[in-house]
Amino acid sequence: MTPEERLAELGIELPEAPPAVGAYVPWARTGNLVVTSFQLPWRAGELAYTGKLGAALTTDDGYAAARLCALNGIAQLKDAAGELEHVRRIVRIEGHVGCAPDFTEIPAVLNGASELVNAVFGERGKHTRTALGHMVMPLDAAVMIGFWAEIEE
Amino acid sequence: MTPEERLAELGIELPEAPPAVGAYVPWARTGNLVVTSFQLPWRAGELAYTGKLGAALTTDDGYAAARLCALNGIAQLKDAAGELEHVRRIVRIEGHVGCAPDFTEIPAVLNGASELVNAVFGERGKHTRTALGHMVMPLDAAVMIGFWAEIEE
Amino acid sequence: MTPEERLAELGIELPEAPPAVGAYVPWARTGNLVVTSFQLPWRAGELAYTGKLGAALTTDDGYAAARLCALNGIAQLKDAAGELEHVRRIVRIEGHVGCAPDFTEIPAVLNGASELVNAVFGERGKHTRTALGHMVMPLDAAVMIGFWAEIEE
Repeated sequence: MTPEERLAELGIELPEAPPAVGAYVPWARTGNLVVTSFQLPWRAGELAYTGKLGAALTTDDGYAAARLCALNGIAQLKDAAGELEHVRRIVRIEGHVGCAPDFTEIPAVLNGASELVNAVFGERGKHTRTALGHMVMPLDAAVMIGFWAEIEE
Repeated sequence: MTPEERLAELGIELPEAPPAVGAYVPWARTGNLVVTSFQLPWRAGELAYTGKLGAALTTDDGYAAARLCALNGIAQLKDAAGELEHVRRIVRIEGHVGCAPDFTEIPAVLNGASELVNAVFGERGKHTRTALGHMVMPLDAAVMIGFWAEIEE
Repeated sequence: MTPEERLAELGIELPEAPPAVGAYVPWARTGNLVVTSFQLPWRAGELAYTGKLGAALTTDDGYAAARLCALNGIAQLKDAAGELEHVRRIVRIEGHVGCAPDFTEIPAVLNGASELVNAVFGERGKHTRTALGHMVMPLDAAVMIGFWAEIEE
């Protein structure tokens, strides 16, 4: 099965890759590496999740926000690679979570991104991850996710 | 026009690449990639912008600080590549902004770095960007900027 | 001397590479690059340093925590490369420190990681570094360290 077929099986429609929010581009390629700008939880042009985990938002909300960010990141990879089948490896997922000062479940939130990537890319989705919590986030986004991926020549 | 000529046209003098502030080096090369350590808003050996956006500093201050950090990063790239013409692509700009808790204009601040890079490198300057706000910053720097760039063999 | 011999000379035993804390992997390779997930200050399966610098922890504690994180990162590189002699260059160390709001000695803390890497890898250990302080950290870890390294074909 291709990643596109796995997405279909999961009942997920790949959105349009969101544009950048400033004087930069959503992804760049160098050699076989594609790197994305941070992906926010955009859905149909609106931020679907704003606010802080451990305050306005629950861990379940954060999981859903991380999954949505990752879906936008997958849309960027498709834009970069043409077909997701050309993605040879998800090398790294960078995870950033907006948090109240005492929120500790950052890894559980970011599993929303990791588990989607694992489901869609299978063995090729096995990624390293960085996880950070922040008390201020751009546009008050609940979660942001960056990707580093290796693609075919 | 070369990047050096564009800098001259903008009336900007490229500073000396600032040294590291610890037991590390300012840039490293691996294959065609050059990566820098975080660049602080150093000017003539002094931090020109300290404090937090949304408190002691305005968004205009932050824009100028981000531009200065990026200028120091360009100096590192020149040190790494010999001539800026050997830079094939600015792959990623990493932006970090010292913020008061309710400051929301992080992208506007980081445009100070992005717009300088776009002006100096033109099409080759089209970069991805990561943007984060922080309530503590090393040396209380207002902004820090990291670069990933692809250079010629 | 090999890096393993330098570790022995320093009286340091390389631990087992710690497993990931979520749906991801501890390291990935793309081309000649190995990248790790963030390393926490694990010792024998327990977090040896939790809490914030400038509050529960001193700068000396933080230095020791950063050194321990880096040791775990070196264990990941050995797992990835087979022998540490196959590491051609430590390209970047990413440093993240849990801080009280007024803590300013982040570079001194991260020297705990940098100085170990310099001692173990010598000329090949000359790395770039990123340094950030955070008021929330995953699992309340005092420090987290990520590695980017170039390894032989």
